[in-house]
Amino acid sequence: MSTAFRWPVRVFYEDTDTAGIVYYANYLKFFERARTEWLRAAGINQRELSQKERRAFVVTRCAIDYHAPARLDDQLILTVVVEKLGRASVNFQQQAWLDHPDHEPTLLCSALVRVGCVNTDSMRPEPLPAHVANQIRSQL
Amino acid sequence: MSTAFRWPVRVFYEDTDTAGIVYYANYLKFFERARTEWLRAAGINQRELSQKERRAFVVTRCAIDYHAPARLDDQLILTVVVEKLGRASVNFQQQAWLDHPDHEPTLLCSALVRVGCVNTDSMRPEPLPAHVANQIRSQL
Amino acid sequence: MSTAFRWPVRVFYEDTDTAGIVYYANYLKFFERARTEWLRAAGINQRELSQKERRAFVVTRCAIDYHAPARLDDQLILTVVVEKLGRASVNFQQQAWLDHPDHEPTLLCSALVRVGCVNTDSMRPEPLPAHVANQIRSQL
Amino acid sequence: MSTAFRWPVRVFYEDTDTAGIVYYANYLKFFERARTEWLRAAGINQRELSQKERRAFVVTRCAIDYHAPARLDDQLILTVVVEKLGRASVNFQQQAWLDHPDHEPTLLCSALVRVGCVNTDSMRPEPLPAHVANQIRSQL
Repeated sequence: MSTAFRWPVRVFYEDTDTAGIVYYANYLKFFERARTEWLRAAGINQRELSQKERRAFVVTRCAIDYHAPARLDDQLILTVVVEKLGRASVNFQQQAWLDHPDHEPTLLCSALVRVGCVNTDSMRPEPLPAHVANQIRSQL
Repeated sequence: MSTAFRWPVRVFYEDTDTAGIVYYANYLKFFERARTEWLRAAGINQRELSQKERRAFVVTRCAIDYHAPARLDDQLILTVVVEKLGRASVNFQQQAWLDHPDHEPTLLCSALVRVGCVNTDSMRPEPLPAHVANQIRSQL
Repeated sequence: MSTAFRWPVRVFYEDTDTAGIVYYANYLKFFERARTEWLRAAGINQRELSQKERRAFVVTRCAIDYHAPARLDDQLILTVVVEKLGRASVNFQQQAWLDHPDHEPTLLCSALVRVGCVNTDSMRPEPLPAHVANQIRSQL
Repeated sequence: MSTAFRWPVRVFYEDTDTAGIVYYANYLKFFERARTEWLRAAGINQRELSQKERRAFVVTRCAIDYHAPARLDDQLILTVVVEKLGRASVNFQQQAWLDHPDHEPTLLCSALVRVGCVNTDSMRPEPLPAHVANQIRSQL
């Protein structure tokens, strides 16, 4: 995960289920938190984007492989890499790693996430605003 | 729970945590589902209320007592009783019961929930629209 | 969705986000509810399976396409079809449809979900118990 | 919130609902994150407590007042104060504040949360282990 953007996530009770592990849907929450912080680091403010330009990012496709479970109190590292920047979409490669205090991180989960830009009124696809595309391009 | 409005809720993996029981915040989701279905049964459509009249219900206070835990696959019964109808608020008394196939239900959780009517633009309190107050009154 | 197993899901406030639509991770909750009810209909009790046979189902892979958004109060129909029954895994094809009172349902979301059977102590893969495999086979 | 323990929480899409605000149940998640980090800061490891001593903390009562809504991207500060340490329970006073870059924080939500110590096998109340009570006492 050398050069990828990283975002730490701690596992709390809310994230686990009765099998004693992080519930599978919750990785999508973790991945979104990491993408949001990646956008914020790139200078993109989603709330303004929505209010001033009527644009929002919505996930249109997502493929996830679950390799190993995480448990209560685990410290995770979420990574974000832009795989492809399209006219109205961005493809992200994301991973969740278990951070160990005394040895190398373990890969828990990896995902390809395709995010589309939509008009918030119509929910129809729209090109990314130029300044957003530029900010993303500058992070590649 | 004799004459109260009832709404069934099944416990799924998503509702549980690593302690093997329903996570405490999730009862607020169950209570809201029951209030929503109670409103629907009273002929009140929250989506229309929001879109056409710019009114929404928001919880302003809530006191919950947890008596016994629920587990995966449990069948719950949620109850709704209106305790007080105010000008811009409704007080609900709600309970969650564990439904047993072969004996009386067990009380799991009880709550007092105060719901306020707000303007969706300002999020400030507003009187309940007259037709909504009437529909609620007709259910008492 | 002619012959598939169907499970109804109503969209509540808890399922939506500030974009006004169902949050993308929540479809995985809906899909799990439908798989659980499909298992229940096939006579498989996950809580007993876990307590008596130390076996649980965990999702190992999942690919989701989001076609159209769902909103508050929408009535969804979730479908479940077994695509492949393996020795220690089951592949499901699942869909979420928007139910309209007056015309044909609209496809909102489709997913391929691979579920593995694990030992609940080790979380390592284990063959499906014979009676479970038989119950699933009888549903095909 | 001068001397209280503080824990920062960012509002993500997952936390909001279609009314554009943080969903009321999610404050209970935020409060739990803050209590967990408070316990961690006091040297109490809940996972070890559960595995080695068969003890867990469960919420038995909780009273919440909602004063003002939080929105996407808001930065919150959660506070934790122990109000009373009992033999088998701890009463917490907790608040959620909206952090502003340029003026004083605004109070969003305040809660009294009573947490009981239970045996994880029976889920029945048990006294707090002496070392846990001492660690909590040293934080008062």
